[in-house]
Amino acid sequence: MLLGKVIGNVWATKKEATLDGLRFLLIRPFTLGGDDSSEVVVAADPIGAGIGETVIVAFGRAARHTIGRGQDVGYQVAVVGIVDYLTLENGVPFEL
Amino acid sequence: MLLGKVIGNVWATKKEATLDGLRFLLIRPFTLGGDDSSEVVVAADPIGAGIGETVIVAFGRAARHTIGRGQDVGYQVAVVGIVDYLTLENGVPFEL
Amino acid sequence: MLLGKVIGNVWATKKEATLDGLRFLLIRPFTLGGDDSSEVVVAADPIGAGIGETVIVAFGRAARHTIGRGQDVGYQVAVVGIVDYLTLENGVPFEL
Amino acid sequence: MLLGKVIGNVWATKKEATLDGLRFLLIRPFTLGGDDSSEVVVAADPIGAGIGETVIVAFGRAARHTIGRGQDVGYQVAVVGIVDYLTLENGVPFEL
Amino acid sequence: MLLGKVIGNVWATKKEATLDGLRFLLIRPFTLGGDDSSEVVVAADPIGAGIGETVIVAFGRAARHTIGRGQDVGYQVAVVGIVDYLTLENGVPFEL
Repeated sequence: MLLGKVIGNVWATKKEATLDGLRFLLIRPFTLGGDDSSEVVVAADPIGAGIGETVIVAFGRAARHTIGRGQDVGYQVAVVGIVDYLTLENGVPFEL
Repeated sequence: MLLGKVIGNVWATKKEATLDGLRFLLIRPFTLGGDDSSEVVVAADPIGAGIGETVIVAFGRAARHTIGRGQDVGYQVAVVGIVDYLTLENGVPFEL
Repeated sequence: MLLGKVIGNVWATKKEATLDGLRFLLIRPFTLGGDDSSEVVVAADPIGAGIGETVIVAFGRAARHTIGRGQDVGYQVAVVGIVDYLTLENGVPFEL
Repeated sequence: MLLGKVIGNVWATKKEATLDGLRFLLIRPFTLGGDDSSEVVVAADPIGAGIGETVIVAFGRAARHTIGRGQDVGYQVAVVGIVDYLTLENGVPFEL
Repeated sequence: MLLGKVIGNVWATKKEATLDGLRFLLIRPFTLGGDDSSEVVVAADPIGAGIGETVIVAFGRAARHTIGRGQDVGYQVAVVGIVDYLTLENGVPFEL
Protein backbone atom coordinates (compact mmCIF):
# COMPACT_ATOMS: atom_id res chain seq x y z
CA MET A 1 0.00 0.00 0.00
CA LEU A 2 0.96 3.63 -0.26
CA LEU A 3 1.88 5.83 2.68
CA GLY A 4 0.89 9.44 2.09
CA LYS A 5 -0.18 12.73 3.57
CA VAL A 6 -3.67 14.13 3.08
CA ILE A 7 -3.22 17.51 1.42
CA GLY A 8 -6.69 18.38 0.23
CA ASN A 9 -10.26 17.49 -0.63
CA VAL A 10 -11.55 16.85 -4.13
CA TRP A 11 -15.02 18.07 -5.06
CA ALA A 12 -16.85 16.70 -8.09
CA THR A 13 -20.52 17.20 -8.94
CA LYS A 14 -20.60 15.27 -12.19
CA LYS A 15 -19.46 11.78 -11.34
CA GLU A 16 -20.19 8.09 -11.69
CA ALA A 17 -23.27 7.25 -9.57
CA THR A 18 -21.46 4.94 -7.14
CA LEU A 19 -19.18 7.80 -6.07
CA ASP A 20 -22.11 9.68 -4.52
CA GLY A 21 -21.75 10.40 -0.84
CA LEU A 22 -18.09 9.46 -0.61
CA ARG A 23 -15.33 11.83 0.51
CA PHE A 24 -12.41 12.06 -1.90
CA LEU A 25 -9.02 13.10 -0.60
CA LEU A 26 -5.95 14.34 -2.41
CA ILE A 27 -2.93 12.45 -1.06
CA ARG A 28 0.77 13.12 -1.55
CA PRO A 29 2.96 10.01 -1.31
CA PHE A 30 5.48 9.95 1.52
CA THR A 31 9.09 10.07 0.35
CA LEU A 32 12.45 9.63 2.02
CA GLY A 33 15.41 11.92 1.76
CA GLY A 34 13.87 15.33 1.58
CA ASP A 35 12.45 15.46 -1.93
CA ASP A 36 8.72 15.94 -1.84
CA SER A 37 6.77 13.87 -4.31
CA SER A 38 5.18 15.88 -7.09
CA GLU A 39 2.62 13.15 -7.71
CA VAL A 40 -0.76 12.86 -6.04
CA VAL A 41 -3.44 10.21 -5.79
CA VAL A 42 -7.15 10.55 -5.17
CA ALA A 43 -8.62 8.15 -2.60
CA ALA A 44 -12.10 7.57 -1.22
CA ASP A 45 -12.03 7.93 2.55
CA PRO A 46 -14.49 6.04 4.74
CA ILE A 47 -12.42 6.56 7.91
CA GLY A 48 -12.41 10.33 8.31
CA ALA A 49 -8.81 11.40 7.81
CA GLY A 50 -8.12 15.11 8.05
CA ILE A 51 -5.77 17.35 6.15
CA GLY A 52 -2.21 16.89 7.35
CA GLU A 53 -2.72 13.33 8.56
CA THR A 54 -0.67 10.44 7.21
CA VAL A 55 -2.68 7.54 5.85
CA ILE A 56 -2.33 4.07 4.38
CA VAL A 57 -3.91 3.85 0.94
CA ALA A 58 -4.93 0.58 -0.72
CA PHE A 59 -5.81 -0.16 -4.32
CA GLY A 60 -8.17 -2.39 -6.27
CA ARG A 61 -10.32 -5.00 -4.56
CA ALA A 62 -8.96 -4.00 -1.15
CA ALA A 63 -10.12 -0.42 -1.68
CA ARG A 64 -13.56 -1.46 -2.84
CA HIS A 65 -13.90 -3.83 0.11
CA THR A 66 -13.01 -1.04 2.51
CA ILE A 67 -15.76 1.22 1.18
CA GLY A 68 -18.26 -1.60 1.66
CA ARG A 69 -20.56 -1.07 -1.32
CA GLY A 70 -19.55 -4.20 -3.22
CA GLN A 71 -17.22 -4.63 -6.17
CA ASP A 72 -19.39 -3.12 -8.93
CA VAL A 73 -18.36 0.44 -8.29
CA GLY A 74 -16.47 3.23 -10.01
CA TYR A 75 -13.54 3.71 -7.60
CA GLN A 76 -10.51 1.58 -6.75
CA VAL A 77 -8.42 3.57 -4.29
CA ALA A 78 -9.26 4.07 -0.61
CA VAL A 79 -7.83 5.14 2.70
CA VAL A 80 -7.61 2.01 4.86
CA GLY A 81 -5.86 3.41 7.94
CA ILE A 82 -4.73 6.60 9.66
CA VAL A 83 -1.11 6.34 10.77
CA ASP A 84 -0.34 7.25 14.39
CA TYR A 85 3.42 7.08 14.00
CA LEU A 86 6.27 5.24 12.37
CA THR A 87 9.17 3.60 14.16
CA LEU A 88 12.36 3.47 12.17
CA GLU A 89 15.66 1.67 12.84
CA ASN A 90 16.28 3.07 16.23
CA GLY A 91 12.74 2.36 17.46
CA VAL A 92 12.14 6.03 18.04
CA PRO A 93 8.80 7.30 16.76
CA PHE A 94 9.22 9.32 13.58
CA GLU A 95 7.49 12.69 13.38
CA LEU A 96 4.84 12.73 10.65
CA MET B 1 -7.38 7.24 -8.64
CA LEU B 2 -5.51 9.72 -10.76
CA LEU B 3 -6.23 13.45 -10.88
CA GLY B 4 -5.46 14.90 -14.29
CA LYS B 5 -6.25 17.53 -16.86
CA VAL B 6 -7.89 16.69 -20.17
CA ILE B 7 -5.49 17.86 -22.86
CA GLY B 8 -6.81 16.24 -26.01
CA ASN B 9 -8.91 13.69 -27.82
CA VAL B 10 -7.61 10.43 -29.24
CA TRP B 11 -9.00 9.18 -32.54
CA ALA B 12 -8.60 5.56 -33.61
CA THR B 13 -10.36 3.85 -36.50
CA LYS B 14 -8.78 0.42 -36.16
CA LYS B 15 -9.60 -0.75 -32.66
CA GLU B 16 -10.91 -3.58 -30.55
CA ALA B 17 -14.68 -3.90 -31.17
CA THR B 18 -15.76 -2.99 -27.63
CA LEU B 19 -14.09 0.42 -27.97
CA ASP B 20 -16.58 1.47 -30.65
CA GLY B 21 -18.62 4.51 -29.80
CA LEU B 22 -16.55 5.55 -26.79
CA ARG B 23 -14.75 8.88 -26.47
CA PHE B 24 -11.08 8.58 -25.60
CA LEU B 25 -9.34 11.44 -23.86
CA LEU B 26 -5.68 12.22 -23.43
CA ILE B 27 -5.07 13.14 -19.80
CA ARG B 28 -2.03 14.71 -18.16
CA PRO B 29 -1.60 13.80 -14.49
CA PHE B 30 -1.82 16.68 -12.01
CA THR B 31 1.45 17.40 -10.24
CA LEU B 32 2.51 19.59 -7.34
CA GLY B 33 5.36 22.02 -7.26
CA GLY B 34 5.42 23.43 -10.73
CA ASP B 35 6.84 20.59 -12.78
CA ASP B 36 4.38 19.47 -15.41
CA SER B 37 4.12 15.74 -15.87
CA SER B 38 5.51 14.50 -19.18
CA GLU B 39 3.39 11.35 -18.97
CA VAL B 40 -0.11 10.94 -20.31
CA VAL B 41 -2.87 8.38 -19.95
CA VAL B 42 -5.73 7.53 -22.29
CA ALA B 43 -9.15 7.17 -20.66
CA ALA B 44 -12.61 6.34 -21.95
CA ASP B 45 -15.00 9.12 -20.98
CA PRO B 46 -18.70 8.43 -20.44
CA ILE B 47 -19.28 11.70 -18.56
CA GLY B 48 -18.46 14.34 -21.16
CA ALA B 49 -15.35 16.10 -19.89
CA GLY B 50 -13.98 18.87 -22.06
CA ILE B 51 -10.44 19.93 -22.84
CA GLY B 52 -8.96 21.87 -19.94
CA GLU B 53 -11.17 20.24 -17.31
CA THR B 54 -9.69 18.34 -14.38
CA VAL B 55 -10.98 14.82 -13.92
CA ILE B 56 -10.74 11.80 -11.66
CA VAL B 57 -9.56 8.72 -13.54
CA ALA B 58 -10.08 5.15 -12.31
CA PHE B 59 -8.47 1.92 -13.44
CA GLY B 60 -9.41 -1.73 -13.88
CA ARG B 61 -12.78 -3.06 -12.78
CA ALA B 62 -13.86 0.39 -11.60
CA ALA B 63 -13.26 1.83 -15.07
CA ARG B 64 -15.12 -0.98 -16.79
CA HIS B 65 -18.04 -0.62 -14.36
CA THR B 66 -18.23 3.09 -15.09
CA ILE B 67 -18.55 2.51 -18.83
CA GLY B 68 -21.39 0.07 -18.19
CA ARG B 69 -20.80 -2.50 -20.89
CA GLY B 70 -19.72 -5.33 -18.61
CA GLN B 71 -16.28 -6.67 -17.80
CA ASP B 72 -15.46 -8.43 -21.09
CA VAL B 73 -14.17 -5.34 -22.83
CA GLY B 74 -10.92 -4.00 -24.22
CA TYR B 75 -10.41 -0.92 -22.01
CA GLN B 76 -9.52 -0.50 -18.34
CA VAL B 77 -9.19 3.25 -17.73
CA ALA B 78 -12.11 5.69 -17.47
CA VAL B 79 -13.05 9.15 -16.33
CA VAL B 80 -15.27 8.73 -13.26
CA GLY B 81 -15.75 12.37 -12.23
CA ILE B 82 -15.20 15.96 -13.32
CA VAL B 83 -13.57 17.99 -10.56
CA ASP B 84 -15.23 21.29 -9.63
CA TYR B 85 -12.46 22.42 -7.30
CA LEU B 86 -9.94 21.31 -4.72
CA THR B 87 -9.65 22.65 -1.20
CA LEU B 88 -6.16 22.52 0.23
CA GLU B 89 -4.88 23.14 3.77
CA ASN B 90 -6.37 26.55 4.19
CA GLY B 91 -9.81 25.51 2.94
CA VAL B 92 -9.53 27.94 0.07
CA PRO B 93 -10.58 26.54 -3.31
CA PHE B 94 -7.56 25.85 -5.51
CA GLU B 95 -7.65 27.13 -9.07
CA LEU B 96 -7.61 24.28 -11.58
CA MET C 1 -4.49 3.03 -21.10
CA LEU C 2 -1.08 3.91 -22.42
CA LEU C 3 -0.41 5.88 -25.59
CA GLY C 4 2.82 4.82 -27.24
CA LYS C 5 4.78 4.42 -30.43
CA VAL C 6 5.66 1.01 -31.86
CA ILE C 7 9.45 0.91 -32.08
CA GLY C 8 10.19 -2.74 -32.69
CA ASN C 9 9.25 -6.39 -32.69
CA VAL C 10 10.15 -8.87 -29.97
CA TRP C 11 11.07 -12.43 -30.94
CA ALA C 12 11.02 -15.24 -28.41
CA THR C 13 11.27 -18.96 -29.15
CA LYS C 14 11.14 -20.24 -25.59
CA LYS C 15 7.89 -18.95 -24.16
CA GLU C 16 4.75 -19.83 -22.27
CA ALA C 17 2.51 -21.95 -24.52
CA THR C 18 -0.35 -19.43 -24.74
CA LEU C 19 1.99 -16.87 -26.31
CA ASP C 20 2.40 -19.00 -29.44
CA GLY C 21 1.33 -17.34 -32.63
CA LEU C 22 1.01 -13.86 -31.18
CA ARG C 23 2.98 -10.83 -32.38
CA PHE C 24 4.80 -8.97 -29.63
CA LEU C 25 5.65 -5.32 -30.11
CA LEU C 26 8.07 -3.09 -28.29
CA ILE C 27 6.29 0.17 -27.45
CA ARG C 28 7.72 3.47 -26.22
CA PRO C 29 5.27 5.53 -24.13
CA PHE C 30 4.29 8.90 -25.57
CA THR C 31 5.53 11.84 -23.54
CA LEU C 32 4.92 15.57 -23.58
CA GLY C 33 7.51 18.29 -23.60
CA GLY C 34 10.30 16.87 -25.65
CA ASP C 35 11.82 14.28 -23.35
CA ASP C 36 11.60 10.84 -24.86
CA SER C 37 10.66 8.09 -22.46
CA SER C 38 13.46 5.66 -21.75
CA GLU C 39 10.97 2.98 -20.70
CA VAL C 40 9.38 0.43 -22.96
CA VAL C 41 6.53 -2.04 -22.70
CA VAL C 42 5.92 -5.27 -24.56
CA ALA C 43 2.38 -5.77 -25.90
CA ALA C 44 0.66 -8.54 -27.82
CA ASP C 45 -0.81 -7.10 -31.00
CA PRO C 46 -3.91 -8.64 -32.61
CA ILE C 47 -4.63 -5.56 -34.74
CA GLY C 48 -1.55 -5.33 -36.95
CA ALA C 49 0.20 -2.13 -35.94
CA GLY C 50 3.41 -1.30 -37.78
CA ILE C 51 6.65 0.25 -36.61
CA GLY C 52 6.26 3.99 -36.21
CA GLU C 53 2.51 3.86 -35.56
CA THR C 54 1.00 5.22 -32.36
CA VAL C 55 -1.20 2.80 -30.46
CA ILE C 56 -3.44 2.53 -27.42
CA VAL C 57 -2.25 -0.18 -25.05
CA ALA C 58 -4.46 -1.81 -22.40
CA PHE C 59 -3.53 -3.94 -19.41
CA GLY C 60 -4.91 -6.89 -17.48
CA ARG C 61 -8.34 -8.33 -18.25
CA ALA C 62 -8.87 -5.81 -21.05
CA ALA C 63 -5.72 -7.00 -22.80
CA ARG C 64 -6.62 -10.66 -22.44
CA HIS C 65 -10.14 -9.97 -23.73
CA THR C 66 -8.71 -8.22 -26.77
CA ILE C 67 -6.58 -11.22 -27.72
CA GLY C 68 -9.66 -13.43 -27.50
CA ARG C 69 -8.16 -16.64 -26.10
CA GLY C 70 -9.80 -16.44 -22.69
CA GLN C 71 -8.38 -15.33 -19.35
CA ASP C 72 -6.13 -18.31 -18.58
CA VAL C 73 -3.18 -17.05 -20.57
CA GLY C 74 0.37 -15.84 -19.97
CA TYR C 75 0.12 -12.24 -21.22
CA GLN C 76 -1.63 -9.16 -19.85
CA VAL C 77 -0.75 -6.28 -22.15
CA ALA C 78 -2.20 -5.73 -25.64
CA VAL C 79 -2.61 -3.19 -28.38
CA VAL C 80 -6.32 -2.27 -28.46
CA GLY C 81 -6.29 0.50 -31.09
CA ILE C 82 -4.15 2.24 -33.70
CA VAL C 83 -4.32 6.02 -33.30
CA ASP C 84 -5.12 8.06 -36.42
CA TYR C 85 -4.47 11.42 -34.81
CA LEU C 86 -4.82 13.46 -31.64
CA THR C 87 -6.62 16.76 -31.34
CA LEU C 88 -5.24 19.03 -28.65
CA GLU C 89 -6.57 22.32 -27.23
CA ASN C 90 -6.85 24.14 -30.47
CA GLY C 91 -8.66 21.27 -32.22
CA VAL C 92 -5.86 20.99 -34.74
CA PRO C 93 -4.71 17.42 -35.42
CA PHE C 94 -1.38 16.71 -33.75
CA GLU C 95 1.34 15.10 -35.85
CA LEU C 96 2.24 11.66 -34.53
CA MET D 1 7.45 -8.68 -7.13
CA LEU D 2 9.38 -5.96 -5.42
CA LEU D 3 12.71 -6.43 -3.65
CA GLY D 4 13.11 -4.03 -0.75
CA LYS D 5 14.60 -3.35 2.63
CA VAL D 6 12.48 -3.12 5.78
CA ILE D 7 13.10 0.33 7.21
CA GLY D 8 10.35 0.74 9.77
CA ASN D 9 7.05 -0.22 11.31
CA VAL D 10 3.76 1.54 10.66
CA TRP D 11 1.31 1.98 13.51
CA ALA D 12 -2.35 2.79 12.90
CA THR D 13 -5.16 2.68 15.43
CA LYS D 14 -7.98 3.81 13.18
CA LYS D 15 -8.08 1.33 10.33
CA GLU D 16 -10.26 -0.94 8.25
CA ALA D 17 -11.40 -3.88 10.42
CA THR D 18 -9.58 -6.58 8.41
CA LEU D 19 -6.23 -4.90 9.12
CA ASP D 20 -6.53 -5.68 12.84
CA GLY D 21 -3.75 -7.80 14.22
CA LEU D 22 -1.47 -7.51 11.20
CA ARG D 23 2.04 -6.05 11.28
CA PHE D 24 2.64 -3.33 8.72
CA LEU D 25 6.16 -2.63 7.54
CA LEU D 26 7.64 0.33 5.73
CA ILE D 27 9.76 -0.95 2.87
CA ARG D 28 12.26 0.88 0.66
CA PRO D 29 12.64 -0.61 -2.82
CA PHE D 30 16.07 -1.98 -3.68
CA THR D 31 17.86 -0.03 -6.39
CA LEU D 32 21.00 -0.53 -8.44
CA GLY D 33 23.77 1.93 -8.98
CA GLY D 34 23.99 3.75 -5.73
CA ASP D 35 20.91 5.96 -5.78
CA ASP D 36 18.61 5.13 -2.91
CA SER D 37 14.94 5.06 -3.75
CA SER D 38 12.95 7.88 -2.19
CA GLU D 39 9.73 5.91 -2.48
CA VAL D 40 8.35 3.54 0.11
CA VAL D 41 5.63 0.92 0.23
CA VAL D 42 3.61 -0.39 3.15
CA ALA D 43 3.23 -4.17 3.34
CA ALA D 44 1.48 -6.53 5.71
CA ASP D 45 3.98 -9.01 7.08
CA PRO D 46 2.91 -12.51 8.16
CA ILE D 47 6.46 -13.88 8.09
CA GLY D 48 8.21 -11.81 10.74
CA ALA D 49 10.79 -9.74 8.89
CA GLY D 50 12.91 -7.40 10.98
CA ILE D 51 14.23 -3.93 10.32
CA GLY D 52 17.21 -4.07 7.97
CA GLU D 53 16.18 -7.33 6.31
CA THR D 54 15.59 -7.55 2.57
CA VAL D 55 12.23 -8.97 1.56
CA ILE D 56 10.18 -9.97 -1.47
CA VAL D 57 6.90 -8.07 -1.62
CA ALA D 58 3.88 -9.21 -3.65
CA PHE D 59 0.77 -7.32 -4.67
CA GLY D 60 -2.93 -7.98 -5.18
CA ARG D 61 -4.38 -11.47 -4.94
CA ALA D 62 -0.95 -12.92 -4.13
CA ALA D 63 -0.64 -10.64 -1.12
CA ARG D 64 -4.12 -11.42 0.14
CA HIS D 65 -3.48 -15.16 -0.29
CA THR D 66 -0.29 -14.88 1.72
CA ILE D 67 -2.08 -13.30 4.67
CA GLY D 68 -4.62 -16.13 4.62
CA ARG D 69 -7.79 -14.31 5.59
CA GLY D 70 -9.52 -14.59 2.21
CA GLN D 71 -9.92 -12.04 -0.56
CA ASP D 72 -12.49 -9.73 1.05
CA VAL D 73 -9.97 -7.66 2.94
CA GLY D 74 -8.62 -4.12 3.00
CA TYR D 75 -4.95 -4.73 2.11
CA GLN D 76 -3.23 -5.82 -1.10
CA VAL D 77 0.51 -5.76 -0.42
CA ALA D 78 2.40 -8.35 1.65
CA VAL D 79 5.83 -9.67 2.43
CA VAL D 80 6.06 -13.14 0.86
CA GLY D 81 9.70 -13.98 1.57
CA ILE D 82 12.79 -12.90 3.48
CA VAL D 83 15.84 -12.84 1.23
CA ASP D 84 18.94 -14.67 2.44
CA TYR D 85 21.21 -13.42 -0.32
CA LEU D 86 21.41 -12.57 -4.00
CA THR D 87 23.82 -14.07 -6.48
CA LEU D 88 24.74 -11.78 -9.34
CA GLU D 89 26.67 -12.44 -12.57
CA ASN D 90 29.75 -13.86 -10.98
CA GLY D 91 27.79 -16.22 -8.71
CA VAL D 92 29.19 -14.49 -5.65
CA PRO D 93 26.63 -13.75 -2.95
CA PHE D 94 25.77 -10.05 -2.86
CA GLU D 95 25.82 -8.32 0.50
CA LEU D 96 22.37 -7.07 1.48
CA MET E 1 4.68 -6.82 -20.17
CA LEU E 2 8.12 -5.77 -19.12
CA LEU E 3 11.28 -6.40 -21.12
CA GLY E 4 14.28 -6.89 -18.88
CA LYS E 5 17.67 -8.49 -18.38
CA VAL E 6 18.24 -11.23 -15.82
CA ILE E 7 20.93 -9.94 -13.49
CA GLY E 8 20.79 -12.32 -10.57
CA ASN E 9 19.11 -14.99 -8.50
CA VAL E 10 17.18 -14.36 -5.31
CA TRP E 11 17.44 -16.86 -2.47
CA ALA E 12 14.88 -16.95 0.33
CA THR E 13 14.49 -19.67 2.95
CA LYS E 14 11.63 -18.15 4.90
CA LYS E 15 8.81 -17.65 2.41
CA GLU E 16 5.15 -18.20 1.72
CA ALA E 17 4.54 -21.94 1.18
CA THR E 18 3.46 -21.65 -2.47
CA LEU E 19 6.84 -20.17 -3.39
CA ASP E 20 8.62 -23.43 -2.55
CA GLY E 21 10.52 -24.96 -5.42
CA LEU E 22 10.33 -21.92 -7.69
CA ARG E 23 13.35 -20.06 -9.05
CA PHE E 24 13.27 -16.32 -8.42
CA LEU E 25 15.23 -14.03 -10.70
CA LEU E 26 16.29 -10.43 -10.26
CA ILE E 27 15.46 -8.54 -13.44
CA ARG E 28 16.54 -5.09 -14.58
CA PRO E 29 14.06 -3.39 -16.93
CA PHE E 30 15.34 -2.63 -20.44
CA THR E 31 15.66 1.07 -21.17
CA LEU E 32 16.35 3.13 -24.27
CA GLY E 33 18.89 5.86 -24.66
CA GLY E 34 21.76 4.71 -22.55
CA ASP E 35 20.51 5.25 -19.02
CA ASP E 36 20.38 2.00 -17.14
CA SER E 37 17.34 1.49 -14.96
CA SER E 38 18.05 1.57 -11.25
CA GLU E 39 14.89 -0.39 -10.50
CA VAL E 40 14.60 -4.14 -10.35
CA VAL E 41 11.78 -6.65 -10.22
CA VAL E 42 11.68 -10.17 -8.83
CA ALA E 43 10.03 -12.78 -11.06
CA ALA E 44 9.36 -16.47 -10.72
CA ASP E 45 10.91 -18.31 -13.65
CA PRO E 46 9.45 -21.58 -14.93
CA ILE E 47 11.29 -21.38 -18.27
CA GLY E 48 14.94 -21.50 -17.24
CA ALA E 49 16.36 -18.11 -18.17
CA GLY E 50 20.02 -17.55 -17.36
CA ILE E 51 21.90 -14.52 -16.14
CA GLY E 52 22.44 -12.05 -18.96
CA GLU E 53 19.41 -13.20 -20.96
CA THR E 54 16.62 -10.80 -21.89
CA VAL E 55 13.14 -11.92 -20.90
CA ILE E 56 9.49 -10.94 -21.12
CA VAL E 57 7.92 -10.57 -17.69
CA ALA E 58 4.17 -10.69 -17.04
CA PHE E 59 2.18 -9.65 -14.00
CA GLY E 60 -0.93 -10.76 -12.13
CA ARG E 61 -3.16 -13.53 -13.41
CA ALA E 62 -0.89 -14.05 -16.43
CA ALA E 63 2.08 -14.71 -14.18
CA ARG E 64 0.17 -17.12 -11.97
CA HIS E 65 -1.16 -18.96 -15.04
CA THR E 66 2.37 -19.33 -16.38
CA ILE E 67 3.59 -20.99 -13.19
CA GLY E 68 0.71 -23.45 -13.40
CA ARG E 69 -0.13 -23.93 -9.73
CA GLY E 70 -3.48 -22.15 -9.82
CA GLN E 71 -4.46 -18.67 -8.69
CA ASP E 72 -4.30 -19.12 -4.91
CA VAL E 73 -0.59 -18.47 -4.63
CA GLY E 74 1.77 -15.91 -3.15
CA TYR E 75 3.48 -14.60 -6.31
CA GLN E 76 2.26 -12.46 -9.19
CA VAL E 77 5.25 -11.84 -11.45
CA ALA E 78 6.76 -14.41 -13.83
CA VAL E 79 9.06 -14.82 -16.77
CA VAL E 80 6.87 -15.80 -19.74
CA GLY E 81 9.44 -15.79 -22.54
CA ILE E 82 13.15 -15.61 -23.32
CA VAL E 83 13.86 -13.05 -26.02
CA ASP E 84 15.99 -14.19 -28.97
CA TYR E 85 16.34 -10.73 -30.51
CA LEU E 86 14.54 -7.49 -31.21
CA THR E 87 14.08 -5.93 -34.62
CA LEU E 88 13.85 -2.15 -34.60
CA GLU E 89 12.91 0.33 -37.34
CA ASN E 90 15.43 -0.83 -39.87
CA GLY E 91 14.55 -4.51 -39.44
CA VAL E 92 18.07 -5.25 -38.27
CA PRO E 93 18.29 -7.47 -35.21
CA PHE E 94 19.22 -5.48 -32.12
CA GLU E 95 22.01 -6.81 -29.94
CA LEU E 96 20.75 -7.73 -26.48
